Amino acid sequence: MRIDIITVLPELLESPLSHSIMKRAQAKGLLEIHVHPLRQYSNLKHSQVDDYQFGGGAGMVMMLEPIVNAIESLQAKVQYDEVIYLTPDGETLNQKMANQLSLKGNLLMLCGHYKGIDQRIRDHFITKEISIGDYVLSGGELGAAVLVDAIGRLLPGVLNNETSALTDSFQDNLLAPPVYTRPEEFRGWKVPEILLSGDHKKIDEWRHQESVERTKQRRPDLL
Amino acid sequence: MRIDIITVLPELLESPLSHSIMKRAQAKGLLEIHVHPLRQYSNLKHSQVDDYQFGGGAGMVMMLEPIVNAIESLQAKVQYDEVIYLTPDGETLNQKMANQLSLKGNLLMLCGHYKGIDQRIRDHFITKEISIGDYVLSGGELGAAVLVDAIGRLLPGVLNNETSALTDSFQDNLLAPPVYTRPEEFRGWKVPEILLSGDHKKIDEWRHQESVERTKQRRPDLL
Repeated sequence: MRIDIITVLPELLESPLSHSIMKRAQAKGLLEIHVHPLRQYSNLKHSQVDDYQFGGGAGMVMMLEPIVNAIESLQAKVQYDEVIYLTPDGETLNQKMANQLSLKGNLLMLCGHYKGIDQRIRDHFITKEISIGDYVLSGGELGAAVLVDAIGRLLPGVLNNETSALTDSFQDNLLAPPVYTRPEEFRGWKVPEILLSGDHKKIDEWRHQESVERTKQRRPDLL
Repeated sequence: MRIDIITVLPELLESPLSHSIMKRAQAKGLLEIHVHPLRQYSNLKHSQVDDYQFGGGAGMVMMLEPIVNAIESLQAKVQYDEVIYLTPDGETLNQKMANQLSLKGNLLMLCGHYKGIDQRIRDHFITKEISIGDYVLSGGELGAAVLVDAIGRLLPGVLNNETSALTDSFQDNLLAPPVYTRPEEFRGWKVPEILLSGDHKKIDEWRHQESVERTKQRRPDLL
């Protein structure tokens, strides 16, 4: 998979994309990530990329021209399955969407900033608008980092143990069951006996029951 | 506000917390962020912080002892309003929660990794479990970065123009209206006339109507 990210703040994306699982995914050649500084695509004075909004009001708007330059010059080289704009009013990201996007070949992501991007870019260039949740962030960069991580870890071969992602929360519409590791006892708090029994059938049953119970309590909407 | 973050991957948090608005919030003394590498708090060989899960199964679990050491040694110095665990099965973050958390004084955040943390930490030390959305990430670090950003930008004085956050999506349960900036026309695509009218009352009405319309279309659940 190849992911291109257009951003006015490339430095913000440095560490999330270069450590841990995302680092491994790239080192293994399973994921290629290219970050493109938007200012590079501005032909305006001082590499301007934002301006006051028409109609007045607080907050700057990202200009159309540099973004169009960026998208079109990338599209001249790569065929993208989706041109994604990260925005709080987009479709809310969930695990199912992450699964679907992980099957694509090339994705282009555009990070908004300030008050957002000129609406005409959304009307004419964006194929998918995604929100990572019902809250506002100072820019789309963290949204892009979250999206890349959610997708990237699903690519076959990225996680060490391929069964690992399948038992995560949401993959079967259930929250994950509680987990425990050593020591067996700490300050009088013990690990549930069943997990020490060695009876794998019973353990599986217990875990499923705990998953259902936790989902009922915390997220009945998922059931 | 002071935020402490306990993580096994401090390097992942470097760039999101040190640029743009988070940088400004810290430079202005409005937000103090301390990242604590979990391994420092392990007394085990090789600074071990994770182990196999009881009952078998894929994925490692973060051990109780290093985390308890970290939490308790921080609590000895700082009184926290909340000890937050970032986890996909926590309460889903929204703007209202971000607003409420932005009024707190000191927050301690714990990032999970692998299959999660030993359940006994959740039972005995965590006061609030937060999920940034219905998807799984490779660790809680991006969740913490998102949470810090969502909260930090709301602190008075952090954004340049204080009215700016108030007109964001979700603050009044409406999505933001479309925004436009120069040029007025590009490839035949024009800015809506009303925005060029100079009639601020009509512009406000138009924006409100667009907000309501967009919310109806995209997120009727918010209305």
